[in-house]
Parts: sequence; structure tokens; C-alpha cells
Amino acid sequence: MMLDMAPLYIGFLIYPGVVQLDVMGAYQVLAFPPDTEMHLIGKTVDPITSNEGVTLLPSITYTDCPPLDVLCVPGGGMGQVEVMRDIETLKFLQRQGAKARYVTSVCTGSLILAAAGLLDEYQATCHWAFREQLACFGVDVVSERVVIDRDRITGAGVTSGIDLGLTLLQLLYDKATAKMAQLMMEYNPQPPFQAGSPEQAGETLTAQLLEAGKPLVDAFQLQVQKIATSV
Amino acid sequence: MMLDMAPLYIGFLIYPGVVQLDVMGAYQVLAFPPDTEMHLIGKTVDPITSNEGVTLLPSITYTDCPPLDVLCVPGGGMGQVEVMRDIETLKFLQRQGAKARYVTSVCTGSLILAAAGLLDEYQATCHWAFREQLACFGVDVVSERVVIDRDRITGAGVTSGIDLGLTLLQLLYDKATAKMAQLMMEYNPQPPFQAGSPEQAGETLTAQLLEAGKPLVDAFQLQVQKIATSV
Repeated sequence: MMLDMAPLYIGFLIYPGVVQLDVMGAYQVLAFPPDTEMHLIGKTVDPITSNEGVTLLPSITYTDCPPLDVLCVPGGGMGQVEVMRDIETLKFLQRQGAKARYVTSVCTGSLILAAAGLLDEYQATCHWAFREQLACFGVDVVSERVVIDRDRITGAGVTSGIDLGLTLLQLLYDKATAKMAQLMMEYNPQPPFQAGSPEQAGETLTAQLLEAGKPLVDAFQLQVQKIATSV
Repeated sequence: MMLDMAPLYIGFLIYPGVVQLDVMGAYQVLAFPPDTEMHLIGKTVDPITSNEGVTLLPSITYTDCPPLDVLCVPGGGMGQVEVMRDIETLKFLQRQGAKARYVTSVCTGSLILAAAGLLDEYQATCHWAFREQLACFGVDVVSERVVIDRDRITGAGVTSGIDLGLTLLQLLYDKATAKMAQLMMEYNPQPPFQAGSPEQAGETLTAQLLEAGKPLVDAFQLQVQKIATSV
């Protein structure tokens, strides 16, 4: 691989309540080539606890982060609600997003990108349960696993990060590199059930999950409305 | 769900050089029920840097860890070589493994379990490139994505952790809970390429990856031989 070249800088935003697998799926794929320099970007270097209780140390802060080739914004639980209106975070994303080769997201991370104005006039996707909220930003929402629209690449829910990472690897390098990463990770998925989408899971299970997740969806909806009316 | 019951204690061993997605795939799935208490277990509480450069904070140490319902051992890069002969780690695994409801692994984590004697007389699997080394421990190696043999559940390479997590969730709870976790994570994988196994990737790509990974496989082989002859 291109060892003589400058590294590719790849950075993932992290914040309290981030969904860790939104980060880690794509991170694992993109760390495969020896010349990617990977970063977890925090507002400060203080430890950050994910939505599931995993505590991560940022490798760099908003202030110290070099210009990124790839910016990736993961989704979160309740912690994301605050992030969508955090001026310092939105300004950081705007600054990086203006120059990055690819501005990307996993799960509800696209709602943060949209809140920063980075999806205006773009097609994008997000977790199946939050597509209405993404549409509130005026984004052209597409119900696909990975959506590529020029320099914006967005993924569906949580596990789509792996598919998004492989898609990005092909764009940044080539198909052979992406396939080699897939082989290294033995990404030959064999889900024991067919329940990864509302269509597959069926109406009853989907309704049950939406009921359990209602406080989160409502909190997102309220925040998205506030952002929309404050513009 | 069973909110009146004691939590299920689920712990992942972490160590310098651990492959982070070996942990995070299964972790994300198993953190879904509200009554699982999740732990990242370190030898000390000092930060641990993964094979890819992610820095994690252990939530608990070998000494403080409660008796686990599920013990999960992830694989690693060069850092794993030392772990396979680390007496303190092997004793911790033996102590927990003797009482856990399920003793599990992802990727080359099964080689650590085998080094601790926890796979004697069991069928198990691991990452496709290390099955010969697993067999050196006398393990009955099975080339499947998730292998269940009584209370031992082992997964193939890196991304198998998600499939293993869902399999475990069904055993610990029921099929509906596992399917709901799958829906929440939108685990409806759509790999952009078909290269997740040597068979799919083809001989050329597989040979290239094995060549690049030779120093790692050789280091594992040497260590496994030392362990085998020291018994």
C-alpha cells in the first residue's frame, strides 16, 4: 500500500451517550490499511462513557484535530439530544465538513450532520426509527443501508457502520483493499434470526420496540422541532 | 423483562492489543436488555489500548470482578501472544470459567480459553486463519460461524461477535428479546462485497492477506508450541 504518502486522517466524533458500535464497526474497517491515522475526537480529553457504559478516551480534541480526510459522526441515545444543539460541536463539524473528502455518519449521526447544516440539498439515511426526524431538517431521506450522495455517505442503524466502512475503503483505496479488510474481519454475516428491519421483524415486534423507545424518539422530535424553528 | 431479578453479569476480558470489534459487537447486543450488567475487565484499572489504537477504560479488575454469568474472551493482535501465557490472566479465567453459565469467545479469543484449559474436550471455532493453532491445543475445531458445545460458545473472526451475541441473547432470555436487539441495531447486513471467507474471497486475495499476516500467525504458532510442550 501507499506507504510513502501522507496518512489519511480519519476521525470519529465521540460524546457522552454515543452508541459505541456506531463508531466501532466503521473504525475497525478503516483502521485496516497501515496508512490511516485514526482518531476519536472529544470536546476535551476527558473519558467519555457510551450509551452502553463503555468508557473511551478521546485521542484528540476539537481544537487539536488536524484537517480530516474522513469525518464520521455516530449516533447516540439521550446524550445525542444535547449534541444536536451544542454550538461548539456544530462549529467543529462545519469547520471540518467544509474541507473533508468525505463527511459521513452512522445511525442517527446524520441528524447531527443535518443540525450542522451539512446535509442541506443532500440525500441521506439514518436508523429506521428516526427517518421522520431526519426529514424534518429538509434532508432528502432515502431508506437504504448506505447512501452515497457526492461527498456525503450516510449509514442506516448501528451495524450499518461495517457496510459503510467497506464502501468508504473502496472509495479511498480500491476494491481489493476493501475485500481484504472484509476477509480479515471474517465479515461473512450469518444472523441467527431475520429481524434486522421492520419488514423482517414484523409489525408486533416493531411496535413493541417503538413503544419501548418512545421517550427517546419523542426527545429527538422535540429537539429537532426546536432547531427547525430557531433557524 | 425480568426487572425484579438480579442482574446478569456479563464480562469481557480486555488487554493491550485486543481487537476492539471482537469485544464491541457482542457487547452492543448483550447490553440491550435493561438487566444485564456489563463489564470490561482489566488486570488493573489503567487505560488499555486496542490493536487499532482505541483506548478503553476497564470498568473492573480481575480482583473485583463479581462471579460472571457470561465470560467473553476476545482475540487480539501481537498483544494476545503474551496474554496466552500470563498466569494471572489464565487463573482469573479458570476461576470465572469454573462457575460461569456460559464461557465464550470471539475470533482468536478461543486460543486464550484453550490456553487456560477451558476448551479441553470441547468443540470450538476461531478466526479462519488460526484454526490450525487452535487445534494444537487438542480442541475439536469446527469451521462454523458460531459453535455451541454445552456451556461453551465460540465465534469465528472479528465480526462473528454480533452473531454470537444474538445467539447468547436467545439462550439467556428468549428469541423475541434477541430479535428485538437485532431490530434495534438494524442488523440487516448488506456487505458491498462477497469476501468474508477464504472461499468467497478466492485464493489470490487469501494468499495476499496470509502473507501480510504471516508475522502474527508465526508468533501465535511459536507461543502455542511453547504452551503445548510446557504442559
